[in-house]
Amino acid sequence: MSQFLNGALRRLTPYTPGEQPRNQAYIKLNTNESPYPPSPGVLAALNRAEGENLRLYSDPEAVELREALAARYRVERESVFVANGSDEALSFAFLAYAADGRGVAFPDISYGFYAVFARLYGIPVRQVPLRADFRLAPEDYNHLHRTIVLANPNAPTGLALSRDEVEGIVRANPDAVVVVDEAYVDFGGESAVPLTARYPNLLVVQTFSKSRSMAGARLGYAIGDAALIQDLEAIRFSTNPYNVNRLTLRTGAAALAEQDYYDANCAAIVDTAPIPSGGWRRLASPAPTPGRTSSLPAIRQRTAGTSTGGSRSAGCWCAASTPPASGDYIRITIGTRAQMDALLERLEGLL
Amino acid sequence: MSQFLNGALRRLTPYTPGEQPRNQAYIKLNTNESPYPPSPGVLAALNRAEGENLRLYSDPEAVELREALAARYRVERESVFVANGSDEALSFAFLAYAADGRGVAFPDISYGFYAVFARLYGIPVRQVPLRADFRLAPEDYNHLHRTIVLANPNAPTGLALSRDEVEGIVRANPDAVVVVDEAYVDFGGESAVPLTARYPNLLVVQTFSKSRSMAGARLGYAIGDAALIQDLEAIRFSTNPYNVNRLTLRTGAAALAEQDYYDANCAAIVDTAPIPSGGWRRLASPAPTPGRTSSLPAIRQRTAGTSTGGSRSAGCWCAASTPPASGDYIRITIGTRAQMDALLERLEGLL
Repeated sequence: MSQFLNGALRRLTPYTPGEQPRNQAYIKLNTNESPYPPSPGVLAALNRAEGENLRLYSDPEAVELREALAARYRVERESVFVANGSDEALSFAFLAYAADGRGVAFPDISYGFYAVFARLYGIPVRQVPLRADFRLAPEDYNHLHRTIVLANPNAPTGLALSRDEVEGIVRANPDAVVVVDEAYVDFGGESAVPLTARYPNLLVVQTFSKSRSMAGARLGYAIGDAALIQDLEAIRFSTNPYNVNRLTLRTGAAALAEQDYYDANCAAIVDTAPIPSGGWRRLASPAPTPGRTSSLPAIRQRTAGTSTGGSRSAGCWCAASTPPASGDYIRITIGTRAQMDALLERLEGLL
Repeated sequence: MSQFLNGALRRLTPYTPGEQPRNQAYIKLNTNESPYPPSPGVLAALNRAEGENLRLYSDPEAVELREALAARYRVERESVFVANGSDEALSFAFLAYAADGRGVAFPDISYGFYAVFARLYGIPVRQVPLRADFRLAPEDYNHLHRTIVLANPNAPTGLALSRDEVEGIVRANPDAVVVVDEAYVDFGGESAVPLTARYPNLLVVQTFSKSRSMAGARLGYAIGDAALIQDLEAIRFSTNPYNVNRLTLRTGAAALAEQDYYDANCAAIVDTAPIPSGGWRRLASPAPTPGRTSSLPAIRQRTAGTSTGGSRSAGCWCAASTPPASGDYIRITIGTRAQMDALLERLEGLL
């Protein structure tokens, strides 16, 4: 830290992203990436012609991609915002809707970045405890008079609210924006997108990083009332109008044209989830019930062999769940069947 | 704008990026993109293998690219910051070094985004007037006790300070960070990078968008004392740790391996600059002297035919210079010789 740094930023506690090993010897199950490659059309989109066009700026209005997203979700283009990963969309939402003293509320066990955004923008935080069974109780979010941020399905618990439950929260907070982070919705959640046409205070954030196998391309988006999207656009055009690069715009549109491919991958991941869950039961009960994300949500570390360090020594990278309340749990990304079998075999060998 | 938007953001005047026509029928000379494609190695880097790796997050430490930049500029890796375009690096610098009431100073005619960043972060601005001949007088920047941001070479004037003049400003402001935006330095400017080892208050920002033909890939970087880089990293890890996508990291490193190719392109652009300048003299004196950027800096609009609208009707997109003080000038990106010849021919036909 330099002597010149803005005093308000001296207390930042930046987000710790999952480790990204630079060799690929490990079975990497720590950051909920898809085990499947992008679809053929995405790979084809990275052709020489687009390479030559790299000399030109990307479309700051992202028209092609926003229209493809609008068609996919049956909304207007003006209701779609695209971002350099959903983290950017979330960051802008925190700035737009909570950085003026209003404050924000989110569950005490959820995506660890929410607290980081709040710290960056000096936003007062109310962390709402999950119930003892890790369930998010919708009634805890009535009339909070502050911006509400919910991951649904929640991570790392894997538990989800129904669309009706989300609607109840949105309706109970007409004076506040409710941000629903649906990073994992394609693995079995009910999306709140259809509600956005009826509620001017609902912003839904999604990503291409999980179900669409494009974590490395950095592409997220938000869907909501056109006035909310204008707010986010004002921030984008005040920081980085060309926030999404040309290759990512192109590959994102290509991915949307091959929805069947990604639906099949999501189904395979959902089908694979019981394998490590069942295997775990043999190793260390109680076993977690597969949730509605692409990871096994909450495996309590019973032995050294099941800790993050232990799994790493067995050649597998898993993640420690970051919120303090769940710090003694590890989260295992659901990979291919072969990866899951190998994981269990290596852990059995260790125990 | 929604009823929910943070009150402090209601007065934003977002940056207006150059128009990006979605068809390529125009000779596009409005946003200082390179007329030359990226080098062969960049095109080769966009291969199928990297496409499949898109499912994995990019390296949040960007080790490979930062080491390549460090080698290129003979600095340590810890002195290099990489960003989703240099706009992001500049935005972070404004937040880090001026958003706590310290304020910022920059020339009244320069890159139009500086005023936008200041507005976003609520930063008091001192606009320092250029002299009558558009020259930036270094003595105007002595002992300002606030963050200083200088584009060098300046745009749209094309005029440059020497390294010694920059050093004088850095030395005269030991209590403030001096940000030198060197977007156009490769077209004939003297870089301040060699000074960064000696001055803890100097941050140099560069980009792959101009001389390296990668505007559409979104890649910028900053070089400075390791403590300054840590400041920027704290903000990056509090907003978007995976800010540079995997394809851009890969193509950026590939570009650095082919410096000769880009040096030749820059030389060609510098050699081409006198063509439109000379041609202009026949059309509408006084003609601009080629500066040290990749555009003809300041052509006063003498007739409708030389206005942005007029040039567009002739099939060429040029840019109106955005700062109010230069609003009656247009800026013409230097393209290939063939593009410059075509531009002059079309404009002659119009007049």
